[in-house]
Amino acid sequence: MKFTILHSDVQTRARTGRLHTDHGEIDTPVFMPVGTAGTVKAVHQRELADDLNALIILGNTYHLYLRPGIDIISKAGGLHRFMNWNRPILTDSGGYQVYSLSGIRKLSPEGALFSSHIDGSKHLFTPEKIVDIQRAIGADIIMALDECTPYPCDHKNAKKSLELTHQWLKRGFDHFIHTEPLYQHGQSFFPIVQGSIYKDLREESAAEIAGYPADGYAIGGLSVGEPEETMYEMTGAVTEILPVDKPRYLMGVGTPVNLLESISLGVDMFDCVMPTRNGRNGMLFTRNGIMNMRNNKWKDDFSALDPEGASFVDHQYSKAYLRHLVISKEILGAQIASLHNLSFYLWLMEEARRQIKSGTFSQWKSKMSKQLSARL
Amino acid sequence: MKFTILHSDVQTRARTGRLHTDHGEIDTPVFMPVGTAGTVKAVHQRELADDLNALIILGNTYHLYLRPGIDIISKAGGLHRFMNWNRPILTDSGGYQVYSLSGIRKLSPEGALFSSHIDGSKHLFTPEKIVDIQRAIGADIIMALDECTPYPCDHKNAKKSLELTHQWLKRGFDHFIHTEPLYQHGQSFFPIVQGSIYKDLREESAAEIAGYPADGYAIGGLSVGEPEETMYEMTGAVTEILPVDKPRYLMGVGTPVNLLESISLGVDMFDCVMPTRNGRNGMLFTRNGIMNMRNNKWKDDFSALDPEGASFVDHQYSKAYLRHLVISKEILGAQIASLHNLSFYLWLMEEARRQIKSGTFSQWKSKMSKQLSARL
Repeated sequence: MKFTILHSDVQTRARTGRLHTDHGEIDTPVFMPVGTAGTVKAVHQRELADDLNALIILGNTYHLYLRPGIDIISKAGGLHRFMNWNRPILTDSGGYQVYSLSGIRKLSPEGALFSSHIDGSKHLFTPEKIVDIQRAIGADIIMALDECTPYPCDHKNAKKSLELTHQWLKRGFDHFIHTEPLYQHGQSFFPIVQGSIYKDLREESAAEIAGYPADGYAIGGLSVGEPEETMYEMTGAVTEILPVDKPRYLMGVGTPVNLLESISLGVDMFDCVMPTRNGRNGMLFTRNGIMNMRNNKWKDDFSALDPEGASFVDHQYSKAYLRHLVISKEILGAQIASLHNLSFYLWLMEEARRQIKSGTFSQWKSKMSKQLSARL
Repeated sequence: MKFTILHSDVQTRARTGRLHTDHGEIDTPVFMPVGTAGTVKAVHQRELADDLNALIILGNTYHLYLRPGIDIISKAGGLHRFMNWNRPILTDSGGYQVYSLSGIRKLSPEGALFSSHIDGSKHLFTPEKIVDIQRAIGADIIMALDECTPYPCDHKNAKKSLELTHQWLKRGFDHFIHTEPLYQHGQSFFPIVQGSIYKDLREESAAEIAGYPADGYAIGGLSVGEPEETMYEMTGAVTEILPVDKPRYLMGVGTPVNLLESISLGVDMFDCVMPTRNGRNGMLFTRNGIMNMRNNKWKDDFSALDPEGASFVDHQYSKAYLRHLVISKEILGAQIASLHNLSFYLWLMEEARRQIKSGTFSQWKSKMSKQLSARL
């Protein structure tokens, strides 16, 4: 997988780039809509491609492994075919979900033993097995098995956890280079930096994973409850060390402002459930701030949902109508809010790329950061 | 509202026609997707128009009255504007929901007193108020307040109930002709035949309502638990009496076979929650029979959802993929199944019109009735 840097900002460490995959090109900075179980919730595949122009989506290995199961996805010829999505896919390693969703789990040098949140059945993820599973899913970009440290976590435990993550990385990378893709397209393997909120550990981890000749590098274990300033500090410390000519992926982040700040620290790729999950709960992100659609103030506001929005839903539906759907728990409410929010996130990335290109990113970021956090 | 009969079948009482409303023409026989609370569940308005080519949809007065409320819909300029749907709408009178959904209700000559299923608040529907509400909603076709008799119901109570329905009809019709539409389009008022499963009462009711110079007539209180043969017998008895040159609407019916049988009895209009509700539960109607998507047999069937289907979902998604979504309770599963089923129902009506026109309806109906009930 080739990565070309197109423009580098002078005032910040932001940059635009292009990732070349066998399923097409990805302009960075990029936001990847989360398609947990092989579906971006409440959004049709044709809407993802034609209305949103999503350049890449994310799938969750943990969820796909449990349901529909790797046997089914393999038989289908991989996730692209199973869900009928012909653009790039990235899958995470399942590490985060093992810690956040599953029942009893036991970590050992061997791997992570856990109970399914669906039926309680026991499973073991090893660094090698996670590569095999992602080979079978067939994502264009696959991730190493890591331990996502909870927050807070003391230095001693964070260091111990980090060592496990590094051991697993060694085994996972080794297995990756000794196995082949199962389908007609290439796959890239990204190691993951951990280290909790400790700069020394983050730097150690970044240096360690930078030693692997990977196509890109991920930053994990952030946005798990720590203050935003800490997240930025850790991200900045890591991007200082990671190879400048490779894409950096900040996992599970974040709000629109988080994205802009992280871009200025040199991050290229993002994913987050926020646009879809918060959308389903009636929260809309716009370039002028956040709208809680449950708020009484929208009940007779018949103006377009978002007159400046890029999606058809912004112009075909009104604020009052969406409020009614959200209050009434109508499925169409989830559909509209998800499309709106994803459209907004993707627009924000497109605009960031434009601003970086024209050398105005820093000023634009300052202006936007104020607007984006407003409560409408 | 003008109704033109285009073709009459020779072997049955089926006919094709065209209803002319201020929001466009409706070819009959027609199926009206149910948009309970101002949304056909899980379907975007542009999908209704562009993908399904729904010619008219239905809204539920009871639901819309409670939420968002008539004040909001009035301020929006009516339901068409509120939900951004520019084709015809029919609203029911709320009678059925008062009996099936609401809590404590008390019927009196004055009207129906009931408790909201949402917050328990008390409300009174009178025949006049139901007209006013539907004037405010602004549907192209509006319905009289009726009492929908439960099943079973003895002859004495059915007769008593019928008398109440007829009294209410008189007041409702009177109020209708002494009020004006609130928006820039006309409205038609349909009386409703009741009479439970008693032919004498059905005939009495049909004769009574046929006395009103209405644009169309509805048949209510069927498909509430009685045997199918009884439903057909009642429907046939009523259509014998109703004016032949006016559209007949069989409320809340039914399965694909129910529709074909009722068309052969001279019914022109249908609505039913079955395609959307059963779809959300994973049941698909196809021209070759019924598919339960939860069935294990679909888990690795990667063929197109319905190779003969008319909707994009039939070709963009596989059986195995939809099964996965249904099992995983993913919203997209509800979206796909709803679009498929509605598309199938609308195709069935389109095909029925074609068969009536070409004089082959009866044979086609026999063949289809066998296929449609098969379990795939």
